[in-house]
Amino acid sequence: MQIAIINGPNLNLLGVREPEVYGTTNFDAYLETLNTKFPVISFSYFQSNVEGELVNELQRVGFTADGIVLNAAAYTHTSIAIGDAVAAISTKVVEVHISNIFAREPFRSQSLISAKSIGVISGFGFQGYALAVQYFVEAKL
Amino acid sequence: MQIAIINGPNLNLLGVREPEVYGTTNFDAYLETLNTKFPVISFSYFQSNVEGELVNELQRVGFTADGIVLNAAAYTHTSIAIGDAVAAISTKVVEVHISNIFAREPFRSQSLISAKSIGVISGFGFQGYALAVQYFVEAKL
Amino acid sequence: MQIAIINGPNLNLLGVREPEVYGTTNFDAYLETLNTKFPVISFSYFQSNVEGELVNELQRVGFTADGIVLNAAAYTHTSIAIGDAVAAISTKVVEVHISNIFAREPFRSQSLISAKSIGVISGFGFQGYALAVQYFVEAKL
Amino acid sequence: MQIAIINGPNLNLLGVREPEVYGTTNFDAYLETLNTKFPVISFSYFQSNVEGELVNELQRVGFTADGIVLNAAAYTHTSIAIGDAVAAISTKVVEVHISNIFAREPFRSQSLISAKSIGVISGFGFQGYALAVQYFVEAKL
Amino acid sequence: MQIAIINGPNLNLLGVREPEVYGTTNFDAYLETLNTKFPVISFSYFQSNVEGELVNELQRVGFTADGIVLNAAAYTHTSIAIGDAVAAISTKVVEVHISNIFAREPFRSQSLISAKSIGVISGFGFQGYALAVQYFVEAKL
Amino acid sequence: MQIAIINGPNLNLLGVREPEVYGTTNFDAYLETLNTKFPVISFSYFQSNVEGELVNELQRVGFTADGIVLNAAAYTHTSIAIGDAVAAISTKVVEVHISNIFAREPFRSQSLISAKSIGVISGFGFQGYALAVQYFVEAKL
Amino acid sequence: MQIAIINGPNLNLLGVREPEVYGTTNFDAYLETLNTKFPVISFSYFQSNVEGELVNELQRVGFTADGIVLNAAAYTHTSIAIGDAVAAISTKVVEVHISNIFAREPFRSQSLISAKSIGVISGFGFQGYALAVQYFVEAKL
Amino acid sequence: MQIAIINGPNLNLLGVREPEVYGTTNFDAYLETLNTKFPVISFSYFQSNVEGELVNELQRVGFTADGIVLNAAAYTHTSIAIGDAVAAISTKVVEVHISNIFAREPFRSQSLISAKSIGVISGFGFQGYALAVQYFVEAKL
Amino acid sequence: MQIAIINGPNLNLLGVREPEVYGTTNFDAYLETLNTKFPVISFSYFQSNVEGELVNELQRVGFTADGIVLNAAAYTHTSIAIGDAVAAISTKVVEVHISNIFAREPFRSQSLISAKSIGVISGFGFQGYALAVQYFVEAKL
Amino acid sequence: MQIAIINGPNLNLLGVREPEVYGTTNFDAYLETLNTKFPVISFSYFQSNVEGELVNELQRVGFTADGIVLNAAAYTHTSIAIGDAVAAISTKVVEVHISNIFAREPFRSQSLISAKSIGVISGFGFQGYALAVQYFVEAKL
Amino acid sequence: MQIAIINGPNLNLLGVREPEVYGTTNFDAYLETLNTKFPVISFSYFQSNVEGELVNELQRVGFTADGIVLNAAAYTHTSIAIGDAVAAISTKVVEVHISNIFAREPFRSQSLISAKSIGVISGFGFQGYALAVQYFVEAKL
Amino acid sequence: MQIAIINGPNLNLLGVREPEVYGTTNFDAYLETLNTKFPVISFSYFQSNVEGELVNELQRVGFTADGIVLNAAAYTHTSIAIGDAVAAISTKVVEVHISNIFAREPFRSQSLISAKSIGVISGFGFQGYALAVQYFVEAKL
Repeated sequence: MQIAIINGPNLNLLGVREPEVYGTTNFDAYLETLNTKFPVISFSYFQSNVEGELVNELQRVGFTADGIVLNAAAYTHTSIAIGDAVAAISTKVVEVHISNIFAREPFRSQSLISAKSIGVISGFGFQGYALAVQYFVEAKL
Repeated sequence: MQIAIINGPNLNLLGVREPEVYGTTNFDAYLETLNTKFPVISFSYFQSNVEGELVNELQRVGFTADGIVLNAAAYTHTSIAIGDAVAAISTKVVEVHISNIFAREPFRSQSLISAKSIGVISGFGFQGYALAVQYFVEAKL
Repeated sequence: MQIAIINGPNLNLLGVREPEVYGTTNFDAYLETLNTKFPVISFSYFQSNVEGELVNELQRVGFTADGIVLNAAAYTHTSIAIGDAVAAISTKVVEVHISNIFAREPFRSQSLISAKSIGVISGFGFQGYALAVQYFVEAKL
Repeated sequence: MQIAIINGPNLNLLGVREPEVYGTTNFDAYLETLNTKFPVISFSYFQSNVEGELVNELQRVGFTADGIVLNAAAYTHTSIAIGDAVAAISTKVVEVHISNIFAREPFRSQSLISAKSIGVISGFGFQGYALAVQYFVEAKL
Repeated sequence: MQIAIINGPNLNLLGVREPEVYGTTNFDAYLETLNTKFPVISFSYFQSNVEGELVNELQRVGFTADGIVLNAAAYTHTSIAIGDAVAAISTKVVEVHISNIFAREPFRSQSLISAKSIGVISGFGFQGYALAVQYFVEAKL
Repeated sequence: MQIAIINGPNLNLLGVREPEVYGTTNFDAYLETLNTKFPVISFSYFQSNVEGELVNELQRVGFTADGIVLNAAAYTHTSIAIGDAVAAISTKVVEVHISNIFAREPFRSQSLISAKSIGVISGFGFQGYALAVQYFVEAKL
Repeated sequence: MQIAIINGPNLNLLGVREPEVYGTTNFDAYLETLNTKFPVISFSYFQSNVEGELVNELQRVGFTADGIVLNAAAYTHTSIAIGDAVAAISTKVVEVHISNIFAREPFRSQSLISAKSIGVISGFGFQGYALAVQYFVEAKL
Repeated sequence: MQIAIINGPNLNLLGVREPEVYGTTNFDAYLETLNTKFPVISFSYFQSNVEGELVNELQRVGFTADGIVLNAAAYTHTSIAIGDAVAAISTKVVEVHISNIFAREPFRSQSLISAKSIGVISGFGFQGYALAVQYFVEAKL
Repeated sequence: MQIAIINGPNLNLLGVREPEVYGTTNFDAYLETLNTKFPVISFSYFQSNVEGELVNELQRVGFTADGIVLNAAAYTHTSIAIGDAVAAISTKVVEVHISNIFAREPFRSQSLISAKSIGVISGFGFQGYALAVQYFVEAKL
Repeated sequence: MQIAIINGPNLNLLGVREPEVYGTTNFDAYLETLNTKFPVISFSYFQSNVEGELVNELQRVGFTADGIVLNAAAYTHTSIAIGDAVAAISTKVVEVHISNIFAREPFRSQSLISAKSIGVISGFGFQGYALAVQYFVEAKL
Repeated sequence: MQIAIINGPNLNLLGVREPEVYGTTNFDAYLETLNTKFPVISFSYFQSNVEGELVNELQRVGFTADGIVLNAAAYTHTSIAIGDAVAAISTKVVEVHISNIFAREPFRSQSLISAKSIGVISGFGFQGYALAVQYFVEAKL
Repeated sequence: MQIAIINGPNLNLLGVREPEVYGTTNFDAYLETLNTKFPVISFSYFQSNVEGELVNELQRVGFTADGIVLNAAAYTHTSIAIGDAVAAISTKVVEVHISNIFAREPFRSQSLISAKSIGVISGFGFQGYALAVQYFVEAKL
């Protein structure tokens, strides 16, 4: 089973940026955890600060992967292009946010991606990625 | 471990109401599934169509349960009182929605409860409840 | 033929409350008139000030009655839950208002129930209930 | 008893235009039905696609008819002039819509005429005209 | 000197319609007063309830008259077409309103014509027409 | 002299809920203080988390009490029904809030009850109830 | 092949009105150009300043012509009635504007007709009509 | 007959400030013209850049003058206090603007004073003051 | 104990201005009542129609008085400067309004001062000042 | 004659993505058609999912090409940067959309590019590109 | 070289008011620093809490000074009159704010003065005044 | 001392693009001026039209440079991602705009970056960069 994890802008700073919001672990360390927890799944990982490269990656994996876990970060709230890409591909997408975006600045409560995704998981820290993966695992059963 | 599941208005019609949106299973059947999947957890279940009774139940379980899974349904979008109750109690609350509320009418995209909850899980059908429970299980570890 | 009449908050004060808006007849007296006017119809009547009890009653009669005449009063403008209940049941609902809600405060011009109802009758005093019943009578012919 | 029926733009296409919304009967056929149903009433009928001609007709019949049934169609939502005419004449006006305007595009939920009318009847198909006439009949009793 | 007076919808009812707002004099009587007061001016007068006929009249007189006094009544607030006509012609236009439109319903406070006119005179009853004429007289001196 | 005190949702948690906002005294203790301070007044007390039960209580005491002190809490901002009840009864109502609702979240600055009340007292802690009672005492003199 | 060209208010002033926006050619001269350019097409032409007469013309040609080129001018932004007519007829409509309406006043950026039309061509001067005709020619091939 | 003319902020710069908008005459010179034109009227004149001093002057002359001509300039759009003063005094007020405020920035189209005034005269240059005086003269006849 | 009472624009007209809203007593007479009711308190009184003078007075008394009762009248709704002054001084401020500002024009429902004050008392006539003083008296105990 | 065609995000999926909206032809096939139809024109073609690369390309061709046909897709509605680039270059730009953007989601009705372009062609499928090219051809004649 | 520094309401409290926002230095001390730093410049200084006096001062210095540094404080966000004065005078104005107004309450992000000024400097503490002066010095070179 | 200057989209066209807004100097020439003016500072310079590359550069220099001068141009108004990067890095950022963004189109008055920056300097042409550098120089002293 192939799962693609795609992270958006500034998430390469995890562990460095605003640790009171995002914690002190970086994402590479967490990927190890995911690999351990879901040994039968083959994960791909992609991070970019460039909106269009996220569109590129969604298109690249979006017709072959079994599931996509997408945290578009700041582009969540401004990118019609990413929303269009999610709608255009055939693989299903789960939208994940590390912090609870509904409890932060008002502009973070609006997502241009949610309506095109299977569902949204927001606020559970890194664990949100695991919950998303679990959804794909069980949905396949 | 004690987990309280609280469902809001019209969710007692699950399996009857708009099956193209909510599926054909009723919630009692799904509770069996949850009990099977999480045998070490003791679940309480409460459903009401009355906003204030949901506040009552949140207060009743909100200082002793280990976690609350709340699907306030229509009151999600209009009830400051339920949001206040979630903020007032000490047990943490995960907000769950069966359908992807962000892909439906615009007024369902706004929640008065999200900002007071740990996080939001929306769009995964009944499976959303299991993901919420799993969050509490792992957060306790 | 079974018709359910459901009245919302403060309509138990009819005849007492703001008579310059609602007249001096109470609703019980008007029910007599309806019974006389439509002798072949069996009416049920329910009034509550509690939003959720209106949802309960809609669910109770909403799969067996031949028609529902609903005046949700103040909840008309704020209750997604009642609108959801109207959409979830199989019996058709006619929305009635005693006063012309479009000629009063602006917030009374918006209804969360209208889009889920067959239609709306507003401004004809108690006579609006009779017009709604007549609709059901003729629609059955 | 004199009742004037006034229909606004595109209603001359009834039976032709969007039959899934407006049905396949044209209005002339329905006028026959009304004449049969209310034999003691003398009906006048006027239809125009021109906003100002609807104002003219309202002024022409508005001081002598016993009642006016007005379906201003698209002008309902944009014409202050028709609303002013309804307010300026002495005959009372009932606003009728064939479809349930509250269940269609948002701009059809707002009426510049409702606040000047006795009341509104919306969503009952052609039958709405009969209900409006019935109101005038009973109000005269 | 040629002055055209153009009145919009429902102003043919002056003296009949809502006398507490518009007084009991009809406009023909007032035209006499104007003729007496400004004997050297040749007045044309046009009234219509049809928006497009007001556009027609503005075009007809708009390249030869020395001034236009326009009371577009209800169309003041909704007609881009009349505003476009005022901008397209060469004769200057003074916008007049009998009642103080700023002290009535909010939608009467907005005009689509004012920005294209020389100026606005609102609230002085019929006398507003005389003040507008006086403006043209003195501007010619 | 009869004064009814009516408290809305979550106020039964006073002394427990968010003490940095609401203090650590519960309301029963404060009722003692009121009884001591105003020995000639007979107080009734009612609290509910259910919107409609607050409407019921307002109707029950609203034609016989000499004054009502109402803290509708979260329903202040969403309940047209309570506002309608305040308008429908004959006893006058003073709206009280323990915290200064104008210094908290924006949605707490709007009240659907204020316009139907005698006046508003907000921000003085429990003392606000005493000030409201004092108003009734002096207004009776 | 029959193509109907319909022009709205003030377009009869082309060549006279605001030449810096609309150029100095009048539309009759341009019709000659169109006839020359598309010799196999039979053109009808209609212009009116009256909204309802544009509705009339759309209905008249709307079930027999092979294509309609509509420039509703000012009514583009205010007429639900014309939009309804475009939706009600069977001939397809292309919306044309001489100037680039998106580069002018903000209220000219909104069209009530676009969503009911095949498409929109805006900003190419008179040439926009030829492009619209060309669309119909090629769509027929 | 006593007429008070009150001018608001920056109008002391007339003749200096933005002459393409306000012309090159200063107001003192124009007052001479008014005195000549209306010899039987006694004018008082007051100008201030301070909002509260305009309130003071309105109160000072507002119970004895026969009419007030008020150009509140920038405060027109922001001062509830001046609007309250206009409402509180017994002398009637005509609101005058030298430029056509409806043809300038959008924020100049809204006035907090208009609804409390007899009427509004905007766009006629200094001549607007004379038209306002003329209104008072004729209204007294 | 020193209490400063500060009144804003047009409150010097109390007893004269709109008596149906504000009563027929002037404020000097009421100050006598306050002195009698609270003999141990030393009151200062200041009224101005000038926004900046109210700021000056707040600064003058705002570091030494034991309490300030502020009725900023019209400036309540427009003055960020007064709100800033309330925040900048060390003495606490109670905001008072004679009429119930929430039951009047919508723009009177918003206050730029409330969020910086201890609390708000609105709608109790002159008695509101006494309630505010009583708050300071008891808060000192 | 040099014409540059620039396509924005997800248009590389044409023929794959949502064929019910965009058809089943891919753009390369259509480019052949364009080459055949306009043999004397030299076309350049560029597609990118990256907003800034579209800016780069506009700058690269924007001082030498004879015309640019730009379909910015999702960036149409969010990119001030592309709008700025269109304004900054000297070659004229025609904005094209394959689907009728005015008949889809509301956020697709707004363009940040239209006001900087010569004109807009929307809704004619791939044929829109040919119409745009035709415009440049004829404008050069 | 003459530079006028003009400070608005509550800035006389600098060093006293909210030191966590504005620091503990008062402005007189800072003026010394400025004099030292720019010995060849002659500074005038004016502070007032009265909006109109700021207008007066702008007019007084606005035709002779070589530059004006204006911190209108709270009036920045509400005063059209000061914005008009800035536009009316011939000396250029630089707008300065001590705190970063864009990082505070939303209403502080809007300025009615910025569009009339040369530019804006916000957030650099007292140093912002020096940067503004430096601009004038270098612009003169 | 290390200062990074980062310029956003279309600023590589400076000297070419809209010289009436941005002048005729290109930025390379101005960098020379800066180097001359601040000989002890080591400047890095980066320009990109790609939003995400600006994020990359902010991350690259944002933990080591002594100051960042950022002109995000069009992305200022749309990029949450750049705002997040400014918040995530440790080096402080001054936001600079060449033109006075507050005096241009309304959408240029809003910045998603200002609240995360030290301060804003807008409207002083290229000189704004020097003022920003000067801030860093003096802040270090």
